[in-house]
Amino acid sequence: MSREITGFSNPLVKRVRSLREKKFRKAEGLFLAEGLRILTEARDAGVLPEMLFHAGSDHPLARALIAAMEAAGGDVIETTPDILAKISGKDNPQAVVGVYRDRLTPLDTIDRASTDIWIVAQSLRDPGNLGTILRTGDAVGAGGLILIDDCVDPFSVEAVRASMGALFTQKIATARWDDFVAWLRKGPGQLVGTSLNTDKDYQEPDYQSPTFLLVGNEAQGLPESYEAQCDLLVKMPMLGKADSLNVAVATAVMAYEILNQKRRRG
Amino acid sequence: MSREITGFSNPLVKRVRSLREKKFRKAEGLFLAEGLRILTEARDAGVLPEMLFHAGSDHPLARALIAAMEAAGGDVIETTPDILAKISGKDNPQAVVGVYRDRLTPLDTIDRASTDIWIVAQSLRDPGNLGTILRTGDAVGAGGLILIDDCVDPFSVEAVRASMGALFTQKIATARWDDFVAWLRKGPGQLVGTSLNTDKDYQEPDYQSPTFLLVGNEAQGLPESYEAQCDLLVKMPMLGKADSLNVAVATAVMAYEILNQKRRRG
Repeated sequence: MSREITGFSNPLVKRVRSLREKKFRKAEGLFLAEGLRILTEARDAGVLPEMLFHAGSDHPLARALIAAMEAAGGDVIETTPDILAKISGKDNPQAVVGVYRDRLTPLDTIDRASTDIWIVAQSLRDPGNLGTILRTGDAVGAGGLILIDDCVDPFSVEAVRASMGALFTQKIATARWDDFVAWLRKGPGQLVGTSLNTDKDYQEPDYQSPTFLLVGNEAQGLPESYEAQCDLLVKMPMLGKADSLNVAVATAVMAYEILNQKRRRG
Repeated sequence: MSREITGFSNPLVKRVRSLREKKFRKAEGLFLAEGLRILTEARDAGVLPEMLFHAGSDHPLARALIAAMEAAGGDVIETTPDILAKISGKDNPQAVVGVYRDRLTPLDTIDRASTDIWIVAQSLRDPGNLGTILRTGDAVGAGGLILIDDCVDPFSVEAVRASMGALFTQKIATARWDDFVAWLRKGPGQLVGTSLNTDKDYQEPDYQSPTFLLVGNEAQGLPESYEAQCDLLVKMPMLGKADSLNVAVATAVMAYEILNQKRRRG
């Protein structure tokens, strides 16, 4: 279905714009993704939006997205550049905005043996960090990101943007810590926490597949009681004055070590 | 010198607040850093602010900063929580704000042989990425960050915050590309670019000290003509659908590989 909207006061424009706020995302079970690159990554991962907004873009990627939506019987809405800018917060006539069904996966439907790495993050606060971790997860072939306790919304506009589309290739689950541990211990999986409370160098262990790589909150790190339940705590060398790394950086350095070990084992 | 300011319209309050904008930072040669942790890191690195603002905090770290300022004859300004919140944009009575002299190092005064790693970033746009790269540089024992062409201001409030104080331990230089290359080629140094235009795995080469690790703009990567002047181009494995990493993540994965090689050589 293709239609046109040219009025700022159109209720759909207002509704879509409201998805920039968490409470409306939650109420509707929908979120926004913006930009040709991210929407194309999503389509390449087999995910089309519920609704696609464009402003008559003639960019080949935009035309390909519109064609894919039309072939699938999706809802394509042509609007004015001004209204699109209002929805997307960006002033770019090539812009496209997709409204997607949220992508949470129930923990107990995850097939942990399908891959070697899962990333687990606890009380993550920054949407840029969350999106960057998803992007890293995609690069290292992780299966997905499990969000523990109260994390920032993975479907916020900033998290989606920072993920550069990895949101559509990575499974995303949420769980309280106790429920996560109960699920984890029902099957194989080595829980490896990054911590400053250990002397074990991160290159020392042989990581076991599947590795569940656990990182903590930006300011506090992991709670001690969570660290106590890990199979292994490891630390990256830090030569500088400060004794910490950005959490998305620490996740990536760890994830590449796990991947590199796996590459060496072949 | 200690003094009190209780009026919102005080010209100094206005002047300090103006340092949140680049044009005023540039005109004054000053920048802001906020928070006990970052100001304490700076002091531990031997750097005190020109002016220290506080709101009568009794936090031990705040008292230690005030004592250090007074011992050095620095300018300590006690103000109200409201004015401090206005300056810092944060509502925290323990807050401290420091006004620092900018910290650019002329390229030709850098002692390249003083350490094994230097990070070079070209046309970096995001202050969070810039600060995160500084923080990583501190952790891997890099000497500093050389900013090529038009990068975001390293003294912006967001970059300073993301650096978590590493801004005060890392040297920061700026240069146009041609001037950087001319300087580089006057002495030892291997220029290693991260690129998607190569098949060489980043774990394959033996990196030579000092390694100049070069990363490009968030969206475009490095210009081809810059890549052509590198001694080596390398690529991290990416197993996912997307073919890129966040630039601060790529920098960290590379920098830890260089550090790990150095650790193995002892």
